[in-house]
Amino acid sequence: MERLLVEPFYVMKVLERAKELEKRGEKVIHLEIGEPDLPVPNKVKERALELLKSLELKYTESVGIYPLREAISSYYEREYGVKVEPERVIITPGSSPGLLALLKVAFEFLGEVSYSDPGYPCYKNMVKFLNIKGRALKVFPENQFKVEAKDLKTPVLIVNSPSNPTGSLYSKKELSKLAEKAFLISDEIYHGITYGQRATSVLEVSENCAVVNGFSKFFLMTGWRLGFLIVPKEFVPQITAVLQNIVISPPTLSQFAALACFEEETLRELKENIKVFKERRDLLLKGLKEIGFKVPVEPQGAFYVFADASKFTDDSFSFAFEVLEKAKVAITPGKDFGSNGTEKFVRFSFCTSKRNIEEALERLYSYLR
Amino acid sequence: MERLLVEPFYVMKVLERAKELEKRGEKVIHLEIGEPDLPVPNKVKERALELLKSLELKYTESVGIYPLREAISSYYEREYGVKVEPERVIITPGSSPGLLALLKVAFEFLGEVSYSDPGYPCYKNMVKFLNIKGRALKVFPENQFKVEAKDLKTPVLIVNSPSNPTGSLYSKKELSKLAEKAFLISDEIYHGITYGQRATSVLEVSENCAVVNGFSKFFLMTGWRLGFLIVPKEFVPQITAVLQNIVISPPTLSQFAALACFEEETLRELKENIKVFKERRDLLLKGLKEIGFKVPVEPQGAFYVFADASKFTDDSFSFAFEVLEKAKVAITPGKDFGSNGTEKFVRFSFCTSKRNIEEALERLYSYLR
Repeated sequence: MERLLVEPFYVMKVLERAKELEKRGEKVIHLEIGEPDLPVPNKVKERALELLKSLELKYTESVGIYPLREAISSYYEREYGVKVEPERVIITPGSSPGLLALLKVAFEFLGEVSYSDPGYPCYKNMVKFLNIKGRALKVFPENQFKVEAKDLKTPVLIVNSPSNPTGSLYSKKELSKLAEKAFLISDEIYHGITYGQRATSVLEVSENCAVVNGFSKFFLMTGWRLGFLIVPKEFVPQITAVLQNIVISPPTLSQFAALACFEEETLRELKENIKVFKERRDLLLKGLKEIGFKVPVEPQGAFYVFADASKFTDDSFSFAFEVLEKAKVAITPGKDFGSNGTEKFVRFSFCTSKRNIEEALERLYSYLR
Repeated sequence: MERLLVEPFYVMKVLERAKELEKRGEKVIHLEIGEPDLPVPNKVKERALELLKSLELKYTESVGIYPLREAISSYYEREYGVKVEPERVIITPGSSPGLLALLKVAFEFLGEVSYSDPGYPCYKNMVKFLNIKGRALKVFPENQFKVEAKDLKTPVLIVNSPSNPTGSLYSKKELSKLAEKAFLISDEIYHGITYGQRATSVLEVSENCAVVNGFSKFFLMTGWRLGFLIVPKEFVPQITAVLQNIVISPPTLSQFAALACFEEETLRELKENIKVFKERRDLLLKGLKEIGFKVPVEPQGAFYVFADASKFTDDSFSFAFEVLEKAKVAITPGKDFGSNGTEKFVRFSFCTSKRNIEEALERLYSYLR
């Protein structure tokens, strides 16, 4: 029982140690967490309060309430100009269980699944959990850590644009090329959070693909645990049967409250937040470079900087702990995102205030220079 | 893509048809649903309202908030006299994802998993989803649909006491015998809902076992999606890593609100509800027998009657639709619970008022007699 079945998040060890330091009264600055610090939209909270007073929170359909499926369908039409019947939208308790169900169904009916290294760790871990065939595709800074069509040998590929941890954005043309060679599972959880051009949805380039998305990043509803899938029509009965069995239904209050996300006022507020993220990004990028980190790919989306720390270390796992002990700044070791060159990298998140970012940069500067 | 990967719940087809009838203005009485109709405890709702006003709902630890793990640990000590460190209690977003994670870990480290036929359908469906080895053990009315130690050939067994769909209760002695032969995964979701003797927890008879439980039945928090596991210490890092990947964390509001479940006043209220369920059970049992159903095992717990309909049919799946069309009563076909003799059985749930049960019985009587 020593060996772990699926890899844990190594950053949790950093977080554990950070908590110990905090118990001793130290002030740690958290740049490891991928959770927006901004508060949930007002309208969502108001709606939830009203509902909680008037509604008994019973199970809903396993695929979620129809009005929310409709609202997401309209949102994708408005944002991306794609027509998706509400029946193809499936609400899930967070995007993770949705991806898990989708991966299983896609593998059984299409075959082996590829994902990038470095990339979001849950892809490989879910593949392992499901005991299905998966393949890591090495990606490199030279191509902005993006998968290239020529390297793709499996019938299914997970793409993540904007990407965690690198912030890379796939162009419409790049997505098209990939979609010609494989069934794409497009993790669009960071959509809405981009700095410059907007993100392309895989639905704009292909009919035969699936989207994983949710309410935890752009919509700021992390602890509400709500996600969604958009899948081809023939996947719907499959995914429905799986979700009935593995989750029963998504949280009821979150589903009804999330309807408020799509009101004009809320969307406007949420879009305003991107300016805040952009300022933080620019500040962090500039500071990290001054200290001596290399940033081969400046993030075009999401809220992370994937920084090359080879000036300071060839073991970024130990480096993360060293920086925590000495500078009291918590960061995520590259190891969490794969094994392809990740010993040189660390991930900085900018889910905290400019003031905190400034202080973190000062601390890092003092310790590392 | 025609064949479904995991079996759907056949009762969903009944429910779909019931909804069509209702759209046409028919009044259908629902005896198919396994969801208590009673409202959530007042204190839970009050707590949720307060929290929603004051708290940002962020991610929690993947294993859930510590105070809730402590509260469950105390509750198991008080109810069953067992000592369980809070660290062994893991909060999950409903009991289903908890069971899924546990099944995977138990299989990888111990081996093949048995479950009863008839039994709760998710057991076999999760085994299929995870692509692990599982074995259905036929159980019969003669032994109250309970698994006997002599038939057990695998290192892991799922027991469900009180059982869905039969309402059978395993005695302490029976659980002990089973625990001597296998690692038990004890689905205790219907604990608290018993008519006469209380249910034994597997933790009373063995150290080397695991519990699946949650807040959706006795605690009436269905749509809040909250469950928990109690596992051996060495399982904790494994289950934690799995849950980090497949669910991230349980819904935050539900976790904090659920703390109110363990206040004396709330527990007293919840225990009072059992009288309501008992009256309904007695009414339904008497009525079904008068109509001509046989009930080989009178339910000692949960809120279902598993009734032998062989006087009326040898195809209980068609019979469920026939009863819906003709008597406007929705019930669950035995097929949902396995293939061992289930074509003769249907499940009646008593999650509805005495008045509705009376009317359903009258309708069934008129149609079937």
